[in-house]
Amino acid sequence: MRSLLVLPAIALLVAAPAPAPPKPKTPSEIVAEAPVAAWQAIDPADLLVMDLKGGGRVVIQLAPAFAPVHVGNIRALARAGYWQGAAIYRVQDNYVAQWGNGESEKPWPAGVNAKPPAEYARPLKGLTVHPLGFSDAYAPRAGFVDGWPMTYDPKTGTASLTHCYASVGVGRDLSPDTGTGGELYAVIGHAPRHLDRNIAVVGRVIEGIDRLSSLPRGTEALGFYKERSSDVPIERIILASEITAADRPAFEYLGTQSAAFGTFVRARANRQDDFFIRPAGGVDVCNAPVPVRRKPA
Amino acid sequence: MRSLLVLPAIALLVAAPAPAPPKPKTPSEIVAEAPVAAWQAIDPADLLVMDLKGGGRVVIQLAPAFAPVHVGNIRALARAGYWQGAAIYRVQDNYVAQWGNGESEKPWPAGVNAKPPAEYARPLKGLTVHPLGFSDAYAPRAGFVDGWPMTYDPKTGTASLTHCYASVGVGRDLSPDTGTGGELYAVIGHAPRHLDRNIAVVGRVIEGIDRLSSLPRGTEALGFYKERSSDVPIERIILASEITAADRPAFEYLGTQSAAFGTFVRARANRQDDFFIRPAGGVDVCNAPVPVRRKPA
Repeated sequence: MRSLLVLPAIALLVAAPAPAPPKPKTPSEIVAEAPVAAWQAIDPADLLVMDLKGGGRVVIQLAPAFAPVHVGNIRALARAGYWQGAAIYRVQDNYVAQWGNGESEKPWPAGVNAKPPAEYARPLKGLTVHPLGFSDAYAPRAGFVDGWPMTYDPKTGTASLTHCYASVGVGRDLSPDTGTGGELYAVIGHAPRHLDRNIAVVGRVIEGIDRLSSLPRGTEALGFYKERSSDVPIERIILASEITAADRPAFEYLGTQSAAFGTFVRARANRQDDFFIRPAGGVDVCNAPVPVRRKPA
Repeated sequence: MRSLLVLPAIALLVAAPAPAPPKPKTPSEIVAEAPVAAWQAIDPADLLVMDLKGGGRVVIQLAPAFAPVHVGNIRALARAGYWQGAAIYRVQDNYVAQWGNGESEKPWPAGVNAKPPAEYARPLKGLTVHPLGFSDAYAPRAGFVDGWPMTYDPKTGTASLTHCYASVGVGRDLSPDTGTGGELYAVIGHAPRHLDRNIAVVGRVIEGIDRLSSLPRGTEALGFYKERSSDVPIERIILASEITAADRPAFEYLGTQSAAFGTFVRARANRQDDFFIRPAGGVDVCNAPVPVRRKPA
């Protein structure tokens, strides 16, 4: 794309013009200017760090408020080194990248609940929701809670995390199996919202999703790699809380109750950058990703 | 994921059980069983074939009913060999892959309109819409026309193509520039619906989108590759109608007015495969992609 563009010269004005209305801020300007107090630190025990053997790091924020048993499993598996020798073995275009120990029948380490409950929804009570403010095709309401995109139903009093780009869920077999957390996937395509309330969403990739999304797609059914030699080996999966302080990555998210986040969502729904000519007047819950950043030093 | 699964044994039935209700069909079963008459051939003049130098083919279906001038340009550019030496030079994660001649100032071949009108919407009149039947966050109504996902507004009488995964649009500078079609992009992430009605959508990738979505992401702003040596060279871009009959690829889509397509959309909105426990009761227009296949021999 060629760069260009000069504003049309204003001419023939006899009197001094009234000051132009302030130019609307872009979503990224709003995030950049958000006050320090609007940012919430992420607990290092909620950060799962996956280092790939070929280089590259993927950092996942866990969601214990929505899937406490599955997240407990994931923490126990990480601490026990369960994923030593694990690999990414499935990459399905416009869907998911999935990793774990695959077909190996590694025994569960201590502290793992082999049959977790179906943590697909939780009570709405106790959650302070920032409503999206626009309709959702999949649920009565959509919004955000503590940094997470979610849907809720005031009638049933339940809330669920949504499957958005970079969301992380628990691979499972047919219902009523809920998976343990030993096999995880991340969404690398258009939000597969039909999985909401059918799978335990346990987190989201907050750094390095491109390491997963740019992997070669598997050629077998469901995107499984045909040969084990195509698998992408994982060097280690570790909780940030287990990494020495000097090396520990630290992240924060834009608090979804902050004024800045409200402004951000409205700007995502009404793009007025110079590029846009018709703001949509709406946005879906997966197209206003909660801003995350490395904690400034 | 381990496979498993045994149905619970049915026991203690004294009388013969009533026959089980027929198992609901999955979306892919519905597509596989759609009658021949439900499939619509795609005109070879609407098929743009992009072969990458490193191997790999990307096939784009063009949408002349929505962006006739831009599509006319694209056909003229392909016929003139305008893209000889072109490359993919921008891959932005969860957004787009973009290609063309980039910063080169190649003159427009004959037949190219250098300043096309803003083909961001067209009259609704004359279109036979299959309504999606579920709410849309971005427009009054969503649906499908002649194989295309779209939105429409009965009040203004306009219709627009949507930005879904694999949609192809025309790169442009700031408004009122509309681009020519010389620089194109394909969506490789969650549907960036805020671009609807702000850019000319000219088609969609119907084969080989994974060739674009699995490319390394560019490290510069907006996903541009830093070095020209990172660009992904394009061998040729040609209309299928210009390829000799023996080598010409042929595709067809599931007619969006067919009964099979209606059944398909309902099944996408109400997944009842054995895997699912709670059908969503809804779907967004980008999560029910119009089925396309190679024309059976």
